[in-house]
Amino acid sequence: MLIDWTKIALDIYDKIKAELINFDKKPTLWAILVWNNPESLRYIKQKKKWADYVWINFKLLELKEDISEKKLLEYINKVNKDNNISWYIIQLPLPKHINKNNIINSINSDKDIDWFHPINQWKMLIWDKTWFQSCTPMWIINILKSLDLVFLGKVVCVIGRSNIVWKPVIALLINEWATVICCNSSTQNIKEFTKKADIIIIATWKPKLLKEDMLKKWSIIIDVWFSVIDGKIIWDADTENIDKAWHKITPVPGWVWPLTVAMLIKNTLKAYKKEKL
Amino acid sequence: MLIDWTKIALDIYDKIKAELINFDKKPTLWAILVWNNPESLRYIKQKKKWADYVWINFKLLELKEDISEKKLLEYINKVNKDNNISWYIIQLPLPKHINKNNIINSINSDKDIDWFHPINQWKMLIWDKTWFQSCTPMWIINILKSLDLVFLGKVVCVIGRSNIVWKPVIALLINEWATVICCNSSTQNIKEFTKKADIIIIATWKPKLLKEDMLKKWSIIIDVWFSVIDGKIIWDADTENIDKAWHKITPVPGWVWPLTVAMLIKNTLKAYKKEKL
Repeated sequence: MLIDWTKIALDIYDKIKAELINFDKKPTLWAILVWNNPESLRYIKQKKKWADYVWINFKLLELKEDISEKKLLEYINKVNKDNNISWYIIQLPLPKHINKNNIINSINSDKDIDWFHPINQWKMLIWDKTWFQSCTPMWIINILKSLDLVFLGKVVCVIGRSNIVWKPVIALLINEWATVICCNSSTQNIKEFTKKADIIIIATWKPKLLKEDMLKKWSIIIDVWFSVIDGKIIWDADTENIDKAWHKITPVPGWVWPLTVAMLIKNTLKAYKKEKL
Repeated sequence: MLIDWTKIALDIYDKIKAELINFDKKPTLWAILVWNNPESLRYIKQKKKWADYVWINFKLLELKEDISEKKLLEYINKVNKDNNISWYIIQLPLPKHINKNNIINSINSDKDIDWFHPINQWKMLIWDKTWFQSCTPMWIINILKSLDLVFLGKVVCVIGRSNIVWKPVIALLINEWATVICCNSSTQNIKEFTKKADIIIIATWKPKLLKEDMLKKWSIIIDVWFSVIDGKIIWDADTENIDKAWHKITPVPGWVWPLTVAMLIKNTLKAYKKEKL
């Protein structure tokens, strides 16, 4: 079976929409856009589209691309203190003359709906369930949960290592009582480990690394990353040659963005409901 | 071979002492002691003993046990601003009427030599090598490094799950390019995983869980926790019956405290050298 994450995202939106319709006032999500390069604009458009769809106001705070880091920090400080702005995101990437970490660290952690601030990242790692999680690790867990999985006792093999995605994913899986095997490019005999896994999560940038003969029957594969070779997208799993009768596997055509945006919208609803309490 | 962590700690102290003797001024480590119960006093005594040994000033800031949380926060705020105090620790445990997290979050993260503040915990998880690590995960890595180990490509099985120790240990091992298998009490057939491991780190509170027939030859076992049964200390590994010709194993008589304190002293030296730059 191919896992259709566009459909999973749509289901999430429809649930959120059904819930928001009961509120007398729309929540507002603010976005600071410093650099209107094509990449940032594509992301912002997606966020606006789905915010509109679920009945969330989406307001853009546009700044000039040549703003100095100091001026940007002053602006963020103002937004942090503005009682009309409950939560906001800062659209990445930022122009090259600005240090991304300085900017992220300056966000008021209570208003940080992307959950990027170090204090929030830490809360996620220790699994403070009362609040949000950041979007990328969250959608991986959400896809798996949409398959009615119970993580307790399952063996999950995570291939790849990065600070932003993998460590949070590993922490979230451990919190759910999974047995987690963390592999990387230095792992010898990776097949030995993938063969044991009920679930494999892969992001290696190595085209078609994961093949049918490395899998246990009935395992689920979440393929997070791809390479572009001669203009063609090649995923980390050899999806074409993996038997879909035996395995559930992403991707379907399309990219993970629908789900990342869905998680942002989900966080906004959660924050709004918390504020209403 | 039994791993003698008292000796490893002593080697660390002697190295630090040899280095500190070259400085014209002693560094000072400050400790806030709110509750002079026997447990806290035992910890404080150890810290003072080894600070003295390596030529570090150890200064105690004693507060009354019945101090309110508000007053304690005010006091910490004063210490945070005091230019004479470069780093300090707050000795745990705290009296029960005080919320530990509120206190830890109020420490100026730049003065937090125990590395307990969320921002510092996060820095450790993303492996910001320019600064410290907190003491417990750090000594586990230090023991292993004292055995001239290269982590790259090694398989490490971590048994147990907790926020303070395990997630940082797992993150540190991943940063060192080890393949890490994270097991917990829901793991089925734990032997399947321990059999593959070059290194096993165990803290389960389950007496003698880890036995000889679960081990790969030549593997190293770091046994972090014990239970007390009928007044007798029983470790998580069945140390008596594990062959010391084939395996390197902790513990020797004595407890991990020497190493935890050694890491604190190591952090103090590191901070002092950084300040001198």
